[in-house]
Amino acid sequence: MQTTSITSPTNERYKRWKKLADTPRTSKKLGVTLAEGIHLAQVIRDSEARVVSIVLRETGASAEAVKLAGELADVKDARVFTVSGALYDAICPVEHGVGLTVEFETIQTPRPHVPVRADVLYLDGVQDAGNMGTLIRTAVAAGVRYIAASSGSAGLWSPKVMRAGMGAHFGATLFENVTPRDLIDMFDARRLAADARGGSDLFRSTGWDEGPTVWMMGAEGPGLSDAALQVADARYLIPIEASCESLNVGAAAAVCLFEQRRRRLLRGE
Amino acid sequence: MQTTSITSPTNERYKRWKKLADTPRTSKKLGVTLAEGIHLAQVIRDSEARVVSIVLRETGASAEAVKLAGELADVKDARVFTVSGALYDAICPVEHGVGLTVEFETIQTPRPHVPVRADVLYLDGVQDAGNMGTLIRTAVAAGVRYIAASSGSAGLWSPKVMRAGMGAHFGATLFENVTPRDLIDMFDARRLAADARGGSDLFRSTGWDEGPTVWMMGAEGPGLSDAALQVADARYLIPIEASCESLNVGAAAAVCLFEQRRRRLLRGE
Repeated sequence: MQTTSITSPTNERYKRWKKLADTPRTSKKLGVTLAEGIHLAQVIRDSEARVVSIVLRETGASAEAVKLAGELADVKDARVFTVSGALYDAICPVEHGVGLTVEFETIQTPRPHVPVRADVLYLDGVQDAGNMGTLIRTAVAAGVRYIAASSGSAGLWSPKVMRAGMGAHFGATLFENVTPRDLIDMFDARRLAADARGGSDLFRSTGWDEGPTVWMMGAEGPGLSDAALQVADARYLIPIEASCESLNVGAAAAVCLFEQRRRRLLRGE
Repeated sequence: MQTTSITSPTNERYKRWKKLADTPRTSKKLGVTLAEGIHLAQVIRDSEARVVSIVLRETGASAEAVKLAGELADVKDARVFTVSGALYDAICPVEHGVGLTVEFETIQTPRPHVPVRADVLYLDGVQDAGNMGTLIRTAVAAGVRYIAASSGSAGLWSPKVMRAGMGAHFGATLFENVTPRDLIDMFDARRLAADARGGSDLFRSTGWDEGPTVWMMGAEGPGLSDAALQVADARYLIPIEASCESLNVGAAAAVCLFEQRRRRLLRGE
């Protein structure tokens, strides 16, 4: 395996990695992102994603990581770069990485011209990267394969979201910078607002799970924006204990999407 | 309000805070922890918790934070310490804190002599602090007010878990260092294992939600320990899409605990 050593933090390529690691919005702007670890590298190897660079930690990279770097270089026709431990750790989203990071082009799907009849998870102003990744993973596990996020949300492809998503990104179709109004043109599905402030009881209401849905979830604290509530066909609340303020957005999405899945599975769908 | 200024990082009290902030297990060992922010400080003010110190950032603390520090000092008969921005930020679990941190004694409930008939969430080797806090919050929201964790789990009271728990700690009874076998003596409830590797379909199985339960959740990756599986009365799996490996533990707990809640609410319990 041929490798190129990068020794200076002022190298243009390294500077891009550093920016991707430090500023979550960079992946949105540049259309590339970073993924660390064996599992993500394997998923990327087996996906359609175009790989830009493969980064190996000069010291401490596991034998498995080195082998995988070689495979990726072959399969994806990409160059392998080695960097010092200090340079590597400065772009690594976790404390003890395996020493293998892949820079790849984020998958940009053109918006549909004709509204798609499919289940969707819509994230309205969700800014926490860990939550965001878990949300993508939960949606895909629940059989919801379209995920759309507002411009005020964290970048769906930012390195930290990639990390928390554990590869679920490649099982979903993702759209960024989607306004609540865009949802009407993009998806032929009922728009359901998860709203801790009011609405019908999720568990006691019937009918909402028939046909495709867009579940809309807001950030903790502010909840859904007015623009999102305006396009909602209905509002639902999860009946939590009165003494609690609200659920974490990841937990709320798990409850709504798996209640939808439960109803459909029991109907034999 | 009388305040004492701490200017040196070698001050004994400051060293304790630093250790609490840096090493998650310290809260377990010392029986004290730190909570940052307005919301947590309010919850602590209104709780039975004994406050050891109140820490104010010398610069940048909001007027609300300063007012609350004074209230806490009165209500809890505790001293207020001021520290420089640099010293404060080094013990603050978030990037932009409000400048108010409370050091308080973690609430240690003696283990029951007679098994308690109650719903429980048991965490077996869950090490991620953010997940842990969300799990406590989800349990309390679902009406599950006993939470027990194995010795291999993150400290339930560590500063990062406090942060993610958003005050739910004070609505629950928490037990640490609980082995799966201890559960038998502590709780008169059926022990249900959430196991991604096998078991009955959570949604299609009936009966498990009748009477109190101990839901046992394992860490991602390893799942439940053999010791936990050995004391389980039954194993259940959440029917996720075949292409997915597993759910995040927080999402899995949300699905199980709210399916339990749904069934009981619909029965009118």
